[in-house]
This record gives sequence, C-alpha cells and structure tokens, in this order.
Amino acid sequence: MIVVLKQSAQKKDIERLTNQIEKQGLNTSIVYGTDQTIIGIIGDTTILDPKTIEVDEAVDHVMRVSEPYKLANRAFHPEDTIIDVAGVKIGGGHLGFIAGPCSVESEEQIIEVAKSVKASGANILRGGAFKPRTSPYSFQGMGSTALDLLLKAKEVTHLPICTELMDASYIPLFNKKVDLVQIGTRNMQNYALLKKVGKEVKKPVLLKRGQSATYEEWIMAAEYIMANGNKNVILCERGIRTYETYTRNTLDLQAIPVLKKLTHLPIIIDPSHAGGKWWLVPPMAKASIAAGCDGLMIEVHNDPEKALSDGPQSLRPEKYSSLMEDIKKLSTIFGKSYE
Amino acid sequence: MIVVLKQSAQKKDIERLTNQIEKQGLNTSIVYGTDQTIIGIIGDTTILDPKTIEVDEAVDHVMRVSEPYKLANRAFHPEDTIIDVAGVKIGGGHLGFIAGPCSVESEEQIIEVAKSVKASGANILRGGAFKPRTSPYSFQGMGSTALDLLLKAKEVTHLPICTELMDASYIPLFNKKVDLVQIGTRNMQNYALLKKVGKEVKKPVLLKRGQSATYEEWIMAAEYIMANGNKNVILCERGIRTYETYTRNTLDLQAIPVLKKLTHLPIIIDPSHAGGKWWLVPPMAKASIAAGCDGLMIEVHNDPEKALSDGPQSLRPEKYSSLMEDIKKLSTIFGKSYE
Amino acid sequence: MIVVLKQSAQKKDIERLTNQIEKQGLNTSIVYGTDQTIIGIIGDTTILDPKTIEVDEAVDHVMRVSEPYKLANRAFHPEDTIIDVAGVKIGGGHLGFIAGPCSVESEEQIIEVAKSVKASGANILRGGAFKPRTSPYSFQGMGSTALDLLLKAKEVTHLPICTELMDASYIPLFNKKVDLVQIGTRNMQNYALLKKVGKEVKKPVLLKRGQSATYEEWIMAAEYIMANGNKNVILCERGIRTYETYTRNTLDLQAIPVLKKLTHLPIIIDPSHAGGKWWLVPPMAKASIAAGCDGLMIEVHNDPEKALSDGPQSLRPEKYSSLMEDIKKLSTIFGKSYE
Amino acid sequence: MIVVLKQSAQKKDIERLTNQIEKQGLNTSIVYGTDQTIIGIIGDTTILDPKTIEVDEAVDHVMRVSEPYKLANRAFHPEDTIIDVAGVKIGGGHLGFIAGPCSVESEEQIIEVAKSVKASGANILRGGAFKPRTSPYSFQGMGSTALDLLLKAKEVTHLPICTELMDASYIPLFNKKVDLVQIGTRNMQNYALLKKVGKEVKKPVLLKRGQSATYEEWIMAAEYIMANGNKNVILCERGIRTYETYTRNTLDLQAIPVLKKLTHLPIIIDPSHAGGKWWLVPPMAKASIAAGCDGLMIEVHNDPEKALSDGPQSLRPEKYSSLMEDIKKLSTIFGKSYE
Repeated sequence: MIVVLKQSAQKKDIERLTNQIEKQGLNTSIVYGTDQTIIGIIGDTTILDPKTIEVDEAVDHVMRVSEPYKLANRAFHPEDTIIDVAGVKIGGGHLGFIAGPCSVESEEQIIEVAKSVKASGANILRGGAFKPRTSPYSFQGMGSTALDLLLKAKEVTHLPICTELMDASYIPLFNKKVDLVQIGTRNMQNYALLKKVGKEVKKPVLLKRGQSATYEEWIMAAEYIMANGNKNVILCERGIRTYETYTRNTLDLQAIPVLKKLTHLPIIIDPSHAGGKWWLVPPMAKASIAAGCDGLMIEVHNDPEKALSDGPQSLRPEKYSSLMEDIKKLSTIFGKSYE
Repeated sequence: MIVVLKQSAQKKDIERLTNQIEKQGLNTSIVYGTDQTIIGIIGDTTILDPKTIEVDEAVDHVMRVSEPYKLANRAFHPEDTIIDVAGVKIGGGHLGFIAGPCSVESEEQIIEVAKSVKASGANILRGGAFKPRTSPYSFQGMGSTALDLLLKAKEVTHLPICTELMDASYIPLFNKKVDLVQIGTRNMQNYALLKKVGKEVKKPVLLKRGQSATYEEWIMAAEYIMANGNKNVILCERGIRTYETYTRNTLDLQAIPVLKKLTHLPIIIDPSHAGGKWWLVPPMAKASIAAGCDGLMIEVHNDPEKALSDGPQSLRPEKYSSLMEDIKKLSTIFGKSYE
Repeated sequence: MIVVLKQSAQKKDIERLTNQIEKQGLNTSIVYGTDQTIIGIIGDTTILDPKTIEVDEAVDHVMRVSEPYKLANRAFHPEDTIIDVAGVKIGGGHLGFIAGPCSVESEEQIIEVAKSVKASGANILRGGAFKPRTSPYSFQGMGSTALDLLLKAKEVTHLPICTELMDASYIPLFNKKVDLVQIGTRNMQNYALLKKVGKEVKKPVLLKRGQSATYEEWIMAAEYIMANGNKNVILCERGIRTYETYTRNTLDLQAIPVLKKLTHLPIIIDPSHAGGKWWLVPPMAKASIAAGCDGLMIEVHNDPEKALSDGPQSLRPEKYSSLMEDIKKLSTIFGKSYE
Repeated sequence: MIVVLKQSAQKKDIERLTNQIEKQGLNTSIVYGTDQTIIGIIGDTTILDPKTIEVDEAVDHVMRVSEPYKLANRAFHPEDTIIDVAGVKIGGGHLGFIAGPCSVESEEQIIEVAKSVKASGANILRGGAFKPRTSPYSFQGMGSTALDLLLKAKEVTHLPICTELMDASYIPLFNKKVDLVQIGTRNMQNYALLKKVGKEVKKPVLLKRGQSATYEEWIMAAEYIMANGNKNVILCERGIRTYETYTRNTLDLQAIPVLKKLTHLPIIIDPSHAGGKWWLVPPMAKASIAAGCDGLMIEVHNDPEKALSDGPQSLRPEKYSSLMEDIKKLSTIFGKSYE
C-alpha cells in the first residue's frame, strides 16, 4: 500500500504516520519526491483499511498495490479450481452447460424442458423457484413447490439442479434439494446472506456479478463466502449496467480473461440476462466459449410466449439444440471437454 | 402500454394479440402507421408484464406509457406525505437532520457525538451497528450491543435513533429499539428483506437508493415495502455509480425535483457517502437544501482519524456546527422548518 | 411517433396538437386510455424533432416507434453492404484484418511490422500519423511524414493503408494517400468534420464508436456521413466507458448482433483499445469472430517496450501470428472468407 | 509516479527499469515489499507516459501520484483566476449569468429575449449559431447570419455574447464578433480544434465537459488550450452520461468543489442541458449557487413551443426572472457579487 502525502506534509507528520502503521505490525519505506513524499507499507496489507490512513490531515490519498483478497487470489493458488456439482465438473478445462426456464411453472413444463436440454448437451438444469422481480405485482415464483418439481425433473433426466436462494431461512431446504445454489445479482452485496451461505450452505455456490460491481467487489463477495467456510464458488457474468439501454445490460466478456488472471475460480457466462433478447444469446454464447469461459447458463423455454417471466430472452429448445452443435465444434478447437 | 408491431405483422397477428390482451380484462385501440402498426392497451396495466407480450413473434417492442407503481405515485396521492419519526416530522416542509458516526464504537463516543450534533441542530441520531463492508476482513460493526449504546445516547439527548437493518431476523429487536430503520444501498433490491420490512417493521423506513438503481426501480423498491403494509417510507439519495472515480459516487441532485414529481414520499440526501470526502459534504449539503430536499443524513465523528470505518467522509463536530448555521439561513429563504 | 398526453389534457389540447402535426404533412390517430390519452403520428417522422412536440404544456412525453435513420437502416436495405478498400472486401462474409502499430515511428519500423502482419494474414495496414492524445505534452504523431512512410510500406507489401483523420484541412492529402480513412472515437460527434468527410472524402470511412455513444447515436453519425454523400462506412466498436476501470474500456460485443439487425453496414472490432492490455486481445479477438463480426483492427508492434504510444496494448508479431492461426480455424467453422 | 513490479521481477529487471527511467533525467527510489517491489520515480513526471513503462514485462502496473497538468493546476497557482468577458468578470467571487435561446431564430426573437434576460439580471447573452445536432435531418442553426443578429442584440442591450464554435475555419469571424467562445461537449476532445483555439482565439473560452469526461480529462482539455497560448478558460459542467435516462444527463454538482480544489479556473453550471426539462432548471440553478459555482448558463426562450431546438429545456422569461430573484438572495448569503 502506498501513502501519498500532501505537499505540505512535515517531518513530524511522516513520523506520526510511520509510527501508526508500524504499530500494526507492518514496515514502512519512504520515497522523498520533488513535490511529494510517499510512504510504502510493507507486509500483509489485506487487514488494513486505506480509509483509516487517508483521514490523516497530512495524507493526500492512499493507493493499493496488491489485491485485498487472499483465498480467491490466483497469486496464492496458481492452479484452476475445479468445482464438482453432483458429479459434473466445472473449471480447469471442464465446461458446465446450465440450461432451463427462467421460472418453474409446472411439472410438465420443467420435465419437458429438462429432457430437451439434456438431449442437446446441457449437464445442469436451472429453473427459478423464488424470483427477484422489480415489481411487487409480478409473478414471484412458485416457491418451495418448484424445488420438488425440479427434483422430479432430476429423477427423469439425472441432471443436477441449480436455483436461486434469496432468503437465508431456506438454506436447510436448499442443502437437501439443490445441487448448485445461485446467489443473484441483486444479492451480490447482501453480506448477511453471503456470510450464512459461507457458513451453512453445503453445496457449491454460483455467484452472479452485481449489476454495477467491479471485478474486485465481485471477487470480494466470493471471498466473503470462502472466508466463512465454503470454498466452492463459481463466478457468473450476466451483464453490467451501462448508459446503453437497447440491451438489458452490457455483457462484459473481458471479464473472462481478467478473472482468469486474478482468481482461480471458474467463470461462466449468462448471455440470456445480459442482452434480454433471445436472438442475442447464440452469438454471445459462442463468443463466450471462444473467449475461454468455463460454461454457460442459458434460459430455454418450450413456449416462451406463455412464460411467466423473461420470455423474450428465452431460446426455444430447437434453437438451443442448434446452438449447442456450434458450441461443440468450438469446444473441440479450444480443447475443452464436458460430460 | 403501447405494443409496436414488426413491419411484417399480419392481420392475424393483430387479432391474436388483441384477443390475448382483452382476455386479461383490458381494452385495445389500433393505430395503423405507414410502416408500422401499434396497439394501444387501455386499462390498469400495472399488473401486465410487458415481456409477456414482447415475446410474441409479431411484436417489435413494448413501451410503458404510465408508471408501474401505484401506492408511491404522486398522480394518485397529490399531497406530500409527512413521516413522523418518534415525534420528528419529515416531508411537507419539515426537514429531518440525521447525523452521527458511521459506526457506533463506544458509549463515550456515541454520547459525545449525539450531544454535539444535537447542539448544532440535528434532530435524529444515526450510528451504524451492523455494517455492510466490501471486505470480510474489515470491521463489521458492534452488532446489537451498538443498539443499546444508541439507546443510552437517546436517553441523554432525546434524539430518535436511526440505524441499518441488514438481516430480517433482527426485525423484532429493531421494532423495540430503533426509531427509523435504514435499508442500505446494497439491499435496495433484496426483495426477501423488503417484503418482511413491509410486513413486520412497525417503524418508518429510510430506503437508500441502490448504487445503480434508476428512479423507477427505486420507487418500485418503496412500492414493495408499501404494498406489504408499511406506508412510512423516506427515500434517501446517496450517490450513484458512474465512470468518474475521483469521488466515491456521483451525487444525483436532480433526483430531488424528479422524485418530488413522481412520488409523494419525502426525499433526503446523504452527501457523506456520495462523495466519500468530508470537504465535499458542506457544499453538497447546502446544494441539497437549495434544491428542495426534505432533510440531510450526515456523518459526524469526534475523532475521524480513529474512526473504525469511513473516517475520510466524516465531518468533525465544529464543521458540522458551522454547516448547520448556513443551512438555517438557507431554510429560512425557502420557508422550510424543523424542530 | 407516440405523443403521451398528461392526465390533465383537454379536448382543445388534442385539437391543437393534431392540427400542428397535420400541418407538417403527417396524419394522427388517437387512443383514449383510462388515465391517459395518446396521439399516434403516422407518416415519415424522421424529419420530426420529438422535442418540438414535448414542449407543449399538455404533453407528458414523446416516444419514437421507429428509428430516426434511413440510409443506414437495415429495414430499407436488407442486403449486407460490402465495402471495397482498395481491393479488399469487408462485409457480407468477407473479413477485414487491419493490423499495425499505434503510431508510425520510422520507415524501418512500419515496413518491418507491415511485412510481418501480412505474413500472418492481415489484409490492411494501420499506423497512426496524427494522434489524439489526452495530454498536450505527449507524442502527437509524426504527422504527414507518417503518411509517406505508410505508402512505402504499402509499396513493399501491397497492403492498403488505414489511418486517422483529425482535421478536415488534411482531406485532400488523405484522398491522395490513404485507402481507409479512420474517424476516431473522440470525433464521432464532431459534426463539422463528419459533414466534410461525407462531402469530400473519396475513400471508405472507418467510423469508431464514441466513448459513450449509444447504438443509435453511432448509426446517426454514420447517417451524417452518408447523407452528405459518402455511403462507404464501416463501423468499429472499440469499447465503451463504464464504471469498471480495471480495463481501459468495456468491450461491447453485443454491438455485433445488434448492429447487424439495425444496419446493413459492416462492423469490425478493435480489441486493443477496448482492454488496453495486450493479453486481453487474443481472447477478445476470437470472441468477436465467434460473435459474427466482419473484421478486426489490432495493434501490433515489433518492440512494444519502445513504442511511443499505447505499448501495453500492442501484440508482438509472433503473438499476432499465433492468434491469426486460431482466427483462421474459427472463420472456417463460421464460413467466412478473407483474401 | 509509482511502478509496481510483478512478484516474479528479478534484480536485473529492476536495474533495466531504473536505468531507463534515469536516462530521462529522473531519479528513482526502491521499496522492497514482502510480495512486491515498487519503484518510486522522482522529478517532473508530467512528460512521462506511464504506458511506456507499463509495457515492460517485469511491470505489473504504473500509478500516478500527482496530476498530469501544470498550467491549470491549483497547486501551482493558488489564487482564483478571474476571467474578463468584455467587461464582465467571472471567478474569484464574481458571478457570470449567461442566458438566451438554444438557437438564434430571428432578429425579433433574439432582441426580445436579450432585453428580457438583461432585465432579470443576466450579464452575458447566449444564442446558438452553429448547432451540433444528433440527426443530420434536424435544424443545424442559422450559421454566420446568427452572429450578426447576436451583435444587433448586443447593440441594444450591451450584453457581451457567447456562442459555440464547431469549426476552426470560423475562428477569424469569432475573433471579430464573439465575446466568449464556447467549445461544446462533443468537441471537448477534438484536439485539432483545441490546439487552434489555444493558438488563434483571442477571446475567453467556455469549455464544456465532455459527455463522459473525467475531471482529469476535462482539465487536460483546458490544459491543451492553455499550453497553446490562451489562458482564459472557463469550465462548464452540463451533465454527464449515466445509466439513468429519465433525465437527459446526470448533473454532477460535486464537480464544483472538486474543480475548485484541483484547478484555479472558474466553473459555471448549465442546468438546462443537464436535465433536458425546464422544470429541473430552477432547483438545480439554486443548488449550483449554493454549492459555490461561479455562474450559470441557462436557456431562455420567449416561445419554447416554437423553438427550433431544445424547447423542452428552455425557461420562459417570467420563470427566469423569478429564478433570478431567488439567486440574488442566495448570492447575498454566500457573499458573491455580479455586475
């Protein structure tokens, strides 16, 4: 960490600051510049809050030199982490293909979609049970009933199931019934939930990027879960909020190489929520694979026109099937595998 | 609501769509344009999800003509709502001045700050008990102990107290001890929490704007709380995320006149979190009052250099006092009052 | 175009507005809603400025139903436009691979890079002559001398040359020496320049997206050039400004399918400026091809450590060569060709 | 400037880098951290492009410690700059009130508006002659004829005149006829224009902030003009682009105290373009004054419904007059003056 002093800083200010820093078990080294002096802090600075130093009157600003996360940091864990979702591997060359409807709507619907996406090559089934909706007057999901319908679809297809957890009181239920527990965009910084997920959830976690989260904030959210005990975190990019409103969000595919560099956790892409339009899904899914992601999460609905939520961004089963044909060809080129 | 059809839409498409819409108890009216036909939907469209129509193959896009919120809508409640926080009125010409430290740190600290801000003119005391921190390794707040220290400060100063609720399991405790329950930025779209706050919280709620929430999404979050039973919602602008990183966030003061137009709920401004630097607080606080807000939430710390969180954005008591002098002069010009 | 009236609008307001609209040769059709009345405007509304109607006291807001551009609009020109850059075709299945250094620095440098990128498969040579730099104290490019060095490299390699035009007074020179005239990000809304480029530039134009331009504003900038006489416009996405600052910009690959839908003009991707880091270029270049773009613009420098500008985002020739191997495999899968 | 090395950096890398830096006449100082080594660069680093160092294989990233601008920097010019616009002072406690129509439309219109805004307290007249419009099919301004009409209004009212320069070829004309030369948002990074404005324009310059310009980029644009010879630059905030689209732009009033800290140049606010709606102008104008700006630029039109551009954001003369009454009261509180 680098402390940049004001031009007006005196010798006594430097002494006060170095004392304060060294009391916390860290070392300092001073660079006297022409106009400005800086103090370099040496040691493990993850425990240090830059703001507690920045408040000093002699300090202009404080800059981090290294990342504030440890468990998720690639620097300390050079190998790719491979997550096992009820037998399906994700990361380290293994691709996860999560597919299914935005919301579970009926037994018939979820089983039909599950069979169809499995036939096309999906290896995990998704389906919303509890839905975060912008309007209190919109359909909020079937709730715990939907979990049982997902289990029926699992019985038929043997696909592990993934669904979103919005409320910590459902953790025991999710531990029993769900294979991959999703934390949604709107809860990425719900720290009360992240802590409990870290401590109590016994299954792998899929952590979506917050709508306007930086890479660092996103990895710090994963660090919350990991520091509380659950190391099995998969990151999922689903588009960020920008000034462009033609698309629902702007899909940030640079996240793939950036996160591969910063962290050892797998990263998958959700092109359905990013664009909000079904015809954006196939090109963006292919682009994601070409950029080196570890999997895709795609909404597929057998009858999008009757979908109770997010119909316009759902692919029909035949479109998904044809997309997966292309994905297989691409995966071959890039030496990736999936089971 | 307006349904814009594709140029390729046929008569049968129009019939199918109008049938589908009319089955839901709404009426339609068709405008045949040169290149495009549109269907106007007549009736209460708040219950209608535009996406369920947008998915139709003949539809290009759907546009809302009126707002999707009702209880919070100024159109249906032209009078300003006045919220009573344990005797302190906010809204309709009454200004709320919430002040205090980012985090409660000790009995001595909170009582000293409380006395000082009261002397300067504050009428509500704030102090963080449970803190949402980006890093799991940062100070997370004193928790429920802090509530008791706030109560001691209340005993001494008679200032009602305001603190953030992050976890629904603490609602009974907050109902007993807290006068104004804050929902933080990171939980603005934590719908599981909003629903419980609407149903179970018996005190007024201060709802901060999400980091990248639109005005509409923000009002919809208030609508969640109101639709679930608690109508006493105060909105709080605290800066939004933009590309500019010199300041912590960009304070959006246009929110004041815009929200005054769209909703009848009071709106207050938090200039401390917006800028992240104490020297930005006085000019922005004065600007907020001049723009017509219903109050201010300001961080004040007796010793910012030892603050366990957000020191750089905290005002010292003497700066707060001098700011409040200016605020009083401004309030007089604009005919606002506070007790 | 749709005119949404205020709830308070009277019959006489509707009459005044319809008269005003019809005087401009357009027709109207009225939809009487439960709370609000709307006026649909029928006819060619590209000439109409929504703001001249929005100002009316009885009007709440005005919404466009169709796009404000004509010449660039896919709806009126369903076929892909193919641009011929001195014999190299771009668009309609033909890929353009533009490569070369950020700045031309010497005869030796530009010829060496030109030979090398040609050997790897590039079909157009880029090299900055006039450089838009954030600081007045940074290297501003070699100016017109650089054009002559580019011509020497062209003589040796027969690659057409592409460079940026910043000042309309150089148009005659560019018409003589340059094959593809680039309009940079910072000039995308320099309308004085766009008009002259439309009227006077005799070569195809590469129009980069403005740093915070919407798709519509970008296409409107192309429409400026086209409406003034030059129909040969290639669009180039190079990243947009967002809150994420780890990368220089956020590359928006959804632009590819979106622009393919809205316009018939070719679209190419510049992954070098988007990320600002060389190691982001190969994954993003592959992703762009997989998403269906019409070409790539990539910075290649034989000695990035001595580059006078943008070294960190330049690929070394051997990395470019290996990237182009992957690109060829991808192009084969997607049935694209390049010569 | 701070050079952060990779963990893998060797002694020979440090030697190579320090040699390279010292060859440019700068000194270095090395801080050996636990995981990472950093090199501090000592001396005038404004001439140094961080990217030329960042490209080195041993370097992780480079961070600036001090600002890259000199002439505009408050650190080297602690006194407020006061700009004289044909006798009207702006800055250092003097307020400039620029008002007038978006576009000059006729002699009658501009004279009527000029008289009226003068009566209300404006001290500079604005009026668009050359208009940057998003659509090539919209009204582009009356051009040089408008300059003569502005001069007639000046003759009648003695108000200095301000209008936008879009094309460097008009500089001689502007030098003759215009008192304050505006550089618009879309040209803030049109460096070819900025250089000529610095060299050839003999009048003060009003430099609007680019739509997505950071404070630093904006000040660097002023530095371009100043470094080329014209030191009389006034900065004008007019809203930035964010994800919120209810308003045309988000007005960033934190810019006022931030720029006051970073630079000695005056800063004025344009609330008309920021919000795009006339009813946002009075609250934002008052907020701007309360925040300490040096003036306001406001659109006033005698008949907004017939305005050829930007009608919805124009105030009627009577609203402007009543706003100026409030402004006068505010100015008194804050001890500002205007003539």
